[in-house]
Amino acid sequence: MDLGIELERNMVSLNFSKSESGLLPAIVQDYQTNEVLMLAYINELAWKETVKTGKAHYWSRSRNKLWLKGETSGHIQKIHEILVDCDDDTVIYKVEQIGGAACHTGHRSCFYRRLENDALVVEGAPLFDPEKVYKK
Amino acid sequence: MDLGIELERNMVSLNFSKSESGLLPAIVQDYQTNEVLMLAYINELAWKETVKTGKAHYWSRSRNKLWLKGETSGHIQKIHEILVDCDDDTVIYKVEQIGGAACHTGHRSCFYRRLENDALVVEGAPLFDPEKVYKK
Repeated sequence: MDLGIELERNMVSLNFSKSESGLLPAIVQDYQTNEVLMLAYINELAWKETVKTGKAHYWSRSRNKLWLKGETSGHIQKIHEILVDCDDDTVIYKVEQIGGAACHTGHRSCFYRRLENDALVVEGAPLFDPEKVYKK
Repeated sequence: MDLGIELERNMVSLNFSKSESGLLPAIVQDYQTNEVLMLAYINELAWKETVKTGKAHYWSRSRNKLWLKGETSGHIQKIHEILVDCDDDTVIYKVEQIGGAACHTGHRSCFYRRLENDALVVEGAPLFDPEKVYKK
């Protein structure tokens, strides 16, 4: 594969060796409201593809492959801004979430449950029906 | 040590086995502005201590020990809300950051650098001098 070779020279380096798995967390925020929509993991390939294309890419731990968010649902995440933390081992993607919902459950954010008195309380309703969006 | 035994029964269970290291990421947001201040890692002990005390605890990967954020600087994080993601392997702590800055560099947020044309641009100035705050 010939991916992002032309960016190699000027690419900002993240410290992928910081974790045993070689993966770093990417926090995904709505670029307008700052709501955290999800957290997923990136390796160097996902990082390069994200910077190159302006669409959020991750490394799927369950499928062990490059994952363009929205490749199945069409709900891609357009990158508006990328922030890097003080020790180069975590990034924030500020995105425009196409379709409105980032979570595979149909909820806007994966963080739709709040801890309250030792129980998790669901907040808000799903924006789409996962069975329809992910149907084959 | 006798830590959080009385909470054992009702404690919300996170999926610590999801990562090889047994650690899960905790995203830390300002409870008022939703700015992401930092990301750190928790194990079951840090999780229980956070819920029990209302002060953010993490597992320090560099020191390999329980870490009460602010134990050296005094800049603790008071928990206002905790959110849990859809597959129980990431949490959000919404906090009041005592002292105003979460980053050991003195910046309000660890994410004080923005990617711009293949370079990192620093935004904002430190709120404190790390040499004074962390002096022994």
